[in-house]
Amino acid sequence: MSLSAGPSGGPVLIVGSVAYDSVRTPFGEAKEVMGGAASYASVSASFFSPVRLVGVVGEDFKYEHVAQLGHRDIDLAGLRRSPGKTFRWEGYYEYDLNQAHTTATELNVFQDFQPHLPAEYRNTPFVFLANIDPALQLSVLDQMRLPKIVACDTMNFWIEGARDRVLEVLARCNIALMNDAEARQLSGEVNLIAAARQILNYGPRVAVIKKGEHGSFMMSRDSYFVAPGYPLKEVRDPTGAGDTFAGGLVGYLARCGDADDEALRRAVICGSVMASFTVEDFSLNRLFRLTPEEIAERYYQIVAMTRFGAF
Amino acid sequence: MSLSAGPSGGPVLIVGSVAYDSVRTPFGEAKEVMGGAASYASVSASFFSPVRLVGVVGEDFKYEHVAQLGHRDIDLAGLRRSPGKTFRWEGYYEYDLNQAHTTATELNVFQDFQPHLPAEYRNTPFVFLANIDPALQLSVLDQMRLPKIVACDTMNFWIEGARDRVLEVLARCNIALMNDAEARQLSGEVNLIAAARQILNYGPRVAVIKKGEHGSFMMSRDSYFVAPGYPLKEVRDPTGAGDTFAGGLVGYLARCGDADDEALRRAVICGSVMASFTVEDFSLNRLFRLTPEEIAERYYQIVAMTRFGAF
Repeated sequence: MSLSAGPSGGPVLIVGSVAYDSVRTPFGEAKEVMGGAASYASVSASFFSPVRLVGVVGEDFKYEHVAQLGHRDIDLAGLRRSPGKTFRWEGYYEYDLNQAHTTATELNVFQDFQPHLPAEYRNTPFVFLANIDPALQLSVLDQMRLPKIVACDTMNFWIEGARDRVLEVLARCNIALMNDAEARQLSGEVNLIAAARQILNYGPRVAVIKKGEHGSFMMSRDSYFVAPGYPLKEVRDPTGAGDTFAGGLVGYLARCGDADDEALRRAVICGSVMASFTVEDFSLNRLFRLTPEEIAERYYQIVAMTRFGAF
Repeated sequence: MSLSAGPSGGPVLIVGSVAYDSVRTPFGEAKEVMGGAASYASVSASFFSPVRLVGVVGEDFKYEHVAQLGHRDIDLAGLRRSPGKTFRWEGYYEYDLNQAHTTATELNVFQDFQPHLPAEYRNTPFVFLANIDPALQLSVLDQMRLPKIVACDTMNFWIEGARDRVLEVLARCNIALMNDAEARQLSGEVNLIAAARQILNYGPRVAVIKKGEHGSFMMSRDSYFVAPGYPLKEVRDPTGAGDTFAGGLVGYLARCGDADDEALRRAVICGSVMASFTVEDFSLNRLFRLTPEEIAERYYQIVAMTRFGAF
């Protein structure tokens, strides 16, 4: 399968935040740049499949950013513009790039957001519920007509404050994506293998646990797959890595039109590849200048670095 | 290649500590049990090749422990028995099993140990210098006649206190094994990829960085290979995991009689497999009841959990 002909797979619906981020890392700083889980996931997925983005921005959201998203074959009919300011996140990372330190969160237009899906969105076969209030994730699911695959993400804030609704979302999902800390927190298990097993008990067929630079693993009832992190000598800004990973994974599945174990394994590698690009620069800068050829090249570098012979 | 016929390659010379450990983990406790880097490495390597162990024990070292080592095709002509007590280590682990907390170290007979190799040991083609005073590692190398492959390990204590001699050892090794913290400390690089590159600059052709539950990676000038940790739901005692890994790696190379990139990749997987058994129980208990069939089975489980198809 070659990407150079452009996306051909079934569309993916992605719901989540579109934001302005201000972030500082040991390698630089960016102020009021485009961010948000849905932005990263959508741009990432758009390298594999057409994307339908559901979210909300404020009146201050710049046209140049709308244009950047639109340029990536992302349908913006579901991106509402509301009175008020766009969601904002401010934070920093120290040398441990796995740990984000939040200094400010302004919900702004997200405070009263109620996702309302355009009629033509309701039949989208692949859905990714990015990190957002689980009540909104459920509201989106209520509006969908028999999606083929639903993947979801969440975060510590909702696991603490809305655990029951997070579990309700999981029970209605096929694929649960989470980072290691969230998997431990949700399951109450320190051991990540035990944590992933427990997450499967909540309902999803597949759990994908992201471990930052240490890669990720995927577990289902009868399969276990482990993917390395792509080795980078420099990580400038880890913001959005997990969202990019999820977008790549779901986008690739949509392109395949399938989510069997073989497709899922390749999708996890695509997720790793996409995340490895995002962290090379601030905001979505690297994704906006990424080419399909670079994606394929890095995929095959991961093939080369993981293969080994018979005992 | 089948292991069921017993070891046929090698031999491997292993120098390092033989100890009595007292260790506490969240899952239990063991007092005055057999430990030491050379013990773990030798028993692990012995599943692949005949082993020649060079080390020292005190008068209190029990015959039953000598017998356990001898039972594993480990030649003990190089294991000296000196007046005094066997080397002792006492420590504990909390829930972060990657971090050993040392409460006591008694060098005892190791204080004045000078390794003197039996004449027939000096032609051994494969050598593993386990973690020990680098001056002793150098003394062993001085006694060897053109070994084919020399692998070495070290630890924070020597990197801090005898950095120049550690670098001298590295310059004379083909394969440097280290854990992530040691690689960072030695190289002064936070990023592990940069750290491994720097270690190659010190002389060895190959650097193998062990990352505990996160697996390991191997880097040479023209190859990068990443191996997952075997997923365990329970780790009872991580003591000796790194030494077991190294023993499995070098033992497997000796069995192959080669150390090209292909053999090295398989050897790293063998190291992971062996380490995954060690941590299932205290001391060398799990290794002493391990079978070649179990090793092959786990190797092929790692094959299954890492394979994925073309893009």
